Amino acid sequence: MSIPPEIISSSSNPLIKTLRGLERKKVRAETGLFLAEGARLVEQGLDAGWDLDSLVVSTSGAERGFMPALISKAKSGGARVVQVPDRLAGQIARKDNPQAVIGAFRQRHKPLGELDATAQDLWVALYEVRDPGNLGTILRTADCAGISGVVLVNQCCDPYSVEAVRASMGSVFDVEFAHGSIEDFASWSSNAGLSVVAASVKGTARHTEIDMKRGTVILMGNEQAGIPPDVEAECDTLCLIPMRGGADSLNLAQATAIMTYEAWRQRDFS
Amino acid sequence: MSIPPEIISSSSNPLIKTLRGLERKKVRAETGLFLAEGARLVEQGLDAGWDLDSLVVSTSGAERGFMPALISKAKSGGARVVQVPDRLAGQIARKDNPQAVIGAFRQRHKPLGELDATAQDLWVALYEVRDPGNLGTILRTADCAGISGVVLVNQCCDPYSVEAVRASMGSVFDVEFAHGSIEDFASWSSNAGLSVVAASVKGTARHTEIDMKRGTVILMGNEQAGIPPDVEAECDTLCLIPMRGGADSLNLAQATAIMTYEAWRQRDFS
Repeated sequence: MSIPPEIISSSSNPLIKTLRGLERKKVRAETGLFLAEGARLVEQGLDAGWDLDSLVVSTSGAERGFMPALISKAKSGGARVVQVPDRLAGQIARKDNPQAVIGAFRQRHKPLGELDATAQDLWVALYEVRDPGNLGTILRTADCAGISGVVLVNQCCDPYSVEAVRASMGSVFDVEFAHGSIEDFASWSSNAGLSVVAASVKGTARHTEIDMKRGTVILMGNEQAGIPPDVEAECDTLCLIPMRGGADSLNLAQATAIMTYEAWRQRDFS
Repeated sequence: MSIPPEIISSSSNPLIKTLRGLERKKVRAETGLFLAEGARLVEQGLDAGWDLDSLVVSTSGAERGFMPALISKAKSGGARVVQVPDRLAGQIARKDNPQAVIGAFRQRHKPLGELDATAQDLWVALYEVRDPGNLGTILRTADCAGISGVVLVNQCCDPYSVEAVRASMGSVFDVEFAHGSIEDFASWSSNAGLSVVAASVKGTARHTEIDMKRGTVILMGNEQAGIPPDVEAECDTLCLIPMRGGADSLNLAQATAIMTYEAWRQRDFS
């Protein structure tokens, strides 16, 4: 016997108001929650052991064959499950055609010091990354390339924003990441015995000519300003991704993909 | 003595209506125009010899120091230059804070047969790419990696959409591209003596293990469906970009960047 679902149909319901607010960083910070859209993503979060606070099922989505199993999984993890008209689901996702389910997961904030790095690892660090689409895409690529994790240095955009979570395609649940100041990052990488390799227009050696087989953290700069000179001065190596004369610049996520796959190639993809 | 600019302040003016419509593919197809936002992009288009149909300058933008030179350059190329209130510029760009200038350039449609390929080249071909952000980003990366050009195979998204042009960061003006059916593509690549290397989950050799030093066209599949089996069967080589077990997939633009930079590495970045 299945218990009838809790049904909410008013947009002024407190839960709905909170979920709609999660588009804003302020509300994400106050509640400690973030949105993941779609059954596949919610399932991935649950499987990776993330704490699902609440699950919203749209009326039309409730009919889908996979739904009873997903609802039962969510409930057994302690989530509140509610059914809402498609219109309300659309208001939460800010989309005309929202996914059948939307999950609100609890954020995790690991201090940088708790990221357990060894001197063989390959890490990525992003210096003041600003664009959530870039950040999400980089998490997705880091996940594919088997990177140990991603360090967000100084003030970065929010990995829990809707845009970053969407672009990460679920990798936000699978890739370790942590925030830290540039000072924290310097001592963390030094303690772990990692060599800091920064991609920079000031690099003299090509990215394919420098050794990333030993423990390495690839440091990528801000979309507009790159890495400031005093931070570059502290890096072990500055390397240059070649570009055709006259071309402008690579997109940050593209450059990060090129760096990580070059490092992984040097390690024979192991 | 400078001639006072033509001023338009009504959103029902025919030119403004046309420019606002360029957000839609239908209007772009009817007029043969597309939008490029910002002085830097407009200048880049003019320098690359593209035909500027009209240039919109916002009232606040008109005061900028670089504007007289840009306006004079645009006029000498035969463009109609109009000044509009910031509000109207925002309506054209569909943004609250539009750029100081917006240019409407004439599209170019080169038949695939006119792309002049030699047996040493490196090309990129996209099979039914759907996302304009991906397409624009790939044009930007192809520009940086000195790719000869990009072939859009079968029905692709529009490289002249606002989103693609934005993501290309001006590379839409500098990278050669052409549309063609899969049959056109097969005969074009065969006539040019190019080897077709497709990135595919069915590939057995790693992308770093196959030879892309001779004339190569890297074929990348659609975001969801990849490359259909009958097209894969016609490719010279299927290669695999390695991924960590359990990871989902790389974003199309990321995978294309990894492929092109690997091919360029094999060619010693020359």
